[in-house]
Amino acid sequence: MSTLKNPSRIYGKVYVLRLGHRVGRDKRITTHVGLVARAFGANGFIIEGICDDSVMSSIAKALSIWGGHMLLDCGVQGLEYVKSWRESGGEVIHLTMYGLPLDDIIDYIRVSPKPKLIIVGAEKVERIYYNVSDYNIAVGHQPHSEVSALAIFLDRLFRGQWTNIEFEGAKLKIIPSIRGKRVVKIEY
Amino acid sequence: MSTLKNPSRIYGKVYVLRLGHRVGRDKRITTHVGLVARAFGANGFIIEGICDDSVMSSIAKALSIWGGHMLLDCGVQGLEYVKSWRESGGEVIHLTMYGLPLDDIIDYIRVSPKPKLIIVGAEKVERIYYNVSDYNIAVGHQPHSEVSALAIFLDRLFRGQWTNIEFEGAKLKIIPSIRGKRVVKIEY
Repeated sequence: MSTLKNPSRIYGKVYVLRLGHRVGRDKRITTHVGLVARAFGANGFIIEGICDDSVMSSIAKALSIWGGHMLLDCGVQGLEYVKSWRESGGEVIHLTMYGLPLDDIIDYIRVSPKPKLIIVGAEKVERIYYNVSDYNIAVGHQPHSEVSALAIFLDRLFRGQWTNIEFEGAKLKIIPSIRGKRVVKIEY
Repeated sequence: MSTLKNPSRIYGKVYVLRLGHRVGRDKRITTHVGLVARAFGANGFIIEGICDDSVMSSIAKALSIWGGHMLLDCGVQGLEYVKSWRESGGEVIHLTMYGLPLDDIIDYIRVSPKPKLIIVGAEKVERIYYNVSDYNIAVGHQPHSEVSALAIFLDRLFRGQWTNIEFEGAKLKIIPSIRGKRVVKIEY
């Protein structure tokens, strides 16, 4: 099995911007979006509008225990962030069920060396984000979840290789097992 | 593009059992699990222990608007449900980060004609479920989400063909678009 210490060395850097987080209501979904960003190899996770300590601390805790390096930020102004991302040479990919089919576009996105900002919204995303994004991409044209949409997107982008990422600095590691829970402490 | 009206005709029937749902706290995550089950081609979605009307009505609404047929059930006793599933000739697949790697096992699971019950838990799943399942399967060995784990599992099981499912009885359909939201009403 090949290992993939850092997928951004092959595929360029990928960051995830979560729009429209609502404290309380979205706490667990936004946390799961952040955990998917980490587990599937993104380099950063940014929450627009607000800083929700319970979300940030859950993701920081996962990084501390299970390793990996990821930029974490919150409270940014979404539209300014997207515009300055593009002005500094990055590209912006908005995940929406109304967009173009993922499987038709992903090969074009994968070969681009530009840093990628993936936008995932809560229930409604303002129309302006459809216009300022380089790509509006549908992970299927059915309602499901921003958690699953992000996972499938990153899976396709990284050609399934996220399962081989080595998370640096991990304190714990799972040994796959048929029926049990085998977890080992890593000594450095 | 080939269409896939009913993936269960090729791959056998697949049902999703959600364990440990907590009213309030898990409302949105469980709803997203149910929406993933529908969008990725499962034949049924069952919630253990309790009936949470807000979850059931959200999934029923998606079925009504976007089409498709899916068994919906709730309030079942989890362990009894799993045991009777096996006794009636089905197999049980528990998704857990401690299990065997998905990519090593999925080909064996895919060729089995047995009806499949996929178990997805909330934070802690009782040890007994590890023992009564035919397979404990890890969708990566990092913490992320039951929403993304189920999506990736069904994606692999159906070889990515869930994007071609035709949902019968849909009232609305999305026309993929570069920047807009194009939705057409379907007349029967």
